[in-house]
Amino acid sequence: MVDTTKTVHFGILGCAEIARKVARAIDLAPNATLCAVASRSKEKAEKFAAENGFPASVKIYGSYDRLLEDPGVDAVYVPLPTSLHVRWAVLAAGRKKHVLVEKPAALDVAELDQILAAVESNGVQFMDGSMWLHHPRTAHIQQLCFVPSSAKSIGPIHFIHSTGTLPATPEFLASNIRVKPELDGLGVLGDLAWYCIGASLWAKGYQLPITVTALPDVKRNSAGVILSITVSLLWDQPIQTLATIHCSFLSHISMDLVICGSDGSVHLRDFTIPYQETSASFDVTFGAKFVDLHIGWNVKPEEVHVVNELPQEALMVQEFSRLVAGIKDCGSQPSTKWPEISRKTQLVVDAVNKSLELGCKSVSL
Amino acid sequence: MVDTTKTVHFGILGCAEIARKVARAIDLAPNATLCAVASRSKEKAEKFAAENGFPASVKIYGSYDRLLEDPGVDAVYVPLPTSLHVRWAVLAAGRKKHVLVEKPAALDVAELDQILAAVESNGVQFMDGSMWLHHPRTAHIQQLCFVPSSAKSIGPIHFIHSTGTLPATPEFLASNIRVKPELDGLGVLGDLAWYCIGASLWAKGYQLPITVTALPDVKRNSAGVILSITVSLLWDQPIQTLATIHCSFLSHISMDLVICGSDGSVHLRDFTIPYQETSASFDVTFGAKFVDLHIGWNVKPEEVHVVNELPQEALMVQEFSRLVAGIKDCGSQPSTKWPEISRKTQLVVDAVNKSLELGCKSVSL
Repeated sequence: MVDTTKTVHFGILGCAEIARKVARAIDLAPNATLCAVASRSKEKAEKFAAENGFPASVKIYGSYDRLLEDPGVDAVYVPLPTSLHVRWAVLAAGRKKHVLVEKPAALDVAELDQILAAVESNGVQFMDGSMWLHHPRTAHIQQLCFVPSSAKSIGPIHFIHSTGTLPATPEFLASNIRVKPELDGLGVLGDLAWYCIGASLWAKGYQLPITVTALPDVKRNSAGVILSITVSLLWDQPIQTLATIHCSFLSHISMDLVICGSDGSVHLRDFTIPYQETSASFDVTFGAKFVDLHIGWNVKPEEVHVVNELPQEALMVQEFSRLVAGIKDCGSQPSTKWPEISRKTQLVVDAVNKSLELGCKSVSL
Repeated sequence: MVDTTKTVHFGILGCAEIARKVARAIDLAPNATLCAVASRSKEKAEKFAAENGFPASVKIYGSYDRLLEDPGVDAVYVPLPTSLHVRWAVLAAGRKKHVLVEKPAALDVAELDQILAAVESNGVQFMDGSMWLHHPRTAHIQQLCFVPSSAKSIGPIHFIHSTGTLPATPEFLASNIRVKPELDGLGVLGDLAWYCIGASLWAKGYQLPITVTALPDVKRNSAGVILSITVSLLWDQPIQTLATIHCSFLSHISMDLVICGSDGSVHLRDFTIPYQETSASFDVTFGAKFVDLHIGWNVKPEEVHVVNELPQEALMVQEFSRLVAGIKDCGSQPSTKWPEISRKTQLVVDAVNKSLELGCKSVSL
């Protein structure tokens, strides 16, 4: 039986690998429950349900439309290839389903705006699947380092550097949807760079950069999909800040995030997916100086540990479900915070693509 | 008395702050001894000698020329402002003095070539004061990570990121020689960026990049001297490698160096000046994978400790003195390794300046 004490009932559209992780997250979140899964073939959905040990109460659909027609489904998680997001997110919103869409939110901001118009007109919640934003480490860094009144604020930010790299296997590079132009045409720009762009915006309090510039090392596969890219973002307020971002499907795993301000710096090496599920850490350095003769430093980085009772993806589902329950049970308005974060991220993704089209010229936002 | 069992006798031209550190390094190096110090005023040189506890055997000169005339001086350390390097390094070489010059080696490669022509024609050794290259950690990383046959090679390098930032005091920004156009006209590009450019070249086995590009966040003082800069370097062999470099006199201390290859990565946060004098560490990550469901990593970075019996600056003096002693006592030829490293670094510095002149266009090397 579906647990009716859990307010928000989820359906999953598609059986992507990432859906395994989010199905588990729905199970772990205290205010969510999985009630349906759909694939284009019922056999595939049945196999997916069996492999992931879904209870018999989870309905299996052989079409996405059928799942959207199910009145028992409050919200859908959309792990489909990016090119299909606009179609299915808009249809889901039209059926009054709240929409948690895997990142990248859409192929471009024009498509995302279609989705956001649909969710807005139907009064449903939208969120993209950037899990790391929901880890308590993220909020902890923000409170500790970015609040000017904090004793340990790092001060105005001068520089941000982030990476998202993975050593893709030959099979991945040959056949994964993330390198197929008709499926995830943004390649690594939509996948790993979504996190790095998001982290840069987050560090800057979601102020948009004034310019976005692709650096000249872009690598594409034979179909033109981006496999590796480096980007710089520039802000001029409240001080000049530059962010560099390097993302690749071609190198060893890295998930570095470094934020350097006037008075301190923050370093993470696992910002997107923490090394461990139940706790994470970050390093902060405040007020570093060289000792006399410049033969050492007065302080070393301090490692700050943050415990999380739920994995970050379950916290994401919990936050999304909290918003959905507010709308469903209390008549609240959908939160505009998460759609705005997605849209700003997508605007920067679009600007990177434009910079690439222009031969790595700077693009103003 | 000057210790005659120590082969190489040093004179120091000028009483810069950095000369205190190098005077101590000369004292610590087993094969070097300080025998003379000069300033433009004898009083200043006397004060410097007294403040630093130089023994009475160290001769005090009130002019650089007089020191260069001293036949007891084998080698000079030149910590003068960069604009004076070419003059005094050439004069020193003409007096058959070996030349250890503080970085940046010169204002541009044309000036450096004058110095290198002078040292070559006079058969004396040249080296610039990049201390970190002499720390055993540097060689350790190279052997462990960059040798293809090593069990833990990081593989072909895809990405390098380095920073050199310091929070300059208002006094520094108002009056330090490193921000005076007539003294150290390169500003942070010659100072901290010298290390980052050097580290990028080092990681790439001193292959020159094919292009150098300044990013659009350069900050200058009212006299036009660079206070903050971000740069990208691009190589195309054996695979495409991009390096980003951020250097600034305006933000909190950082000395990050990250090298990411196909099979692993190396992280340092104190690459230029280690946190402590007697040991240093670096982090390596090899063969990282996400665990099933991508809810964590299979490995965390491994911290590798390297003990150094002498500080890196003493190891630099020791290496320089070893080469000088070989020339002086055994008739060896000067090593071309160190001049070549300086020259390649200077070529990249020049290219950054050219990119800035061209409005951040990429400059081919």
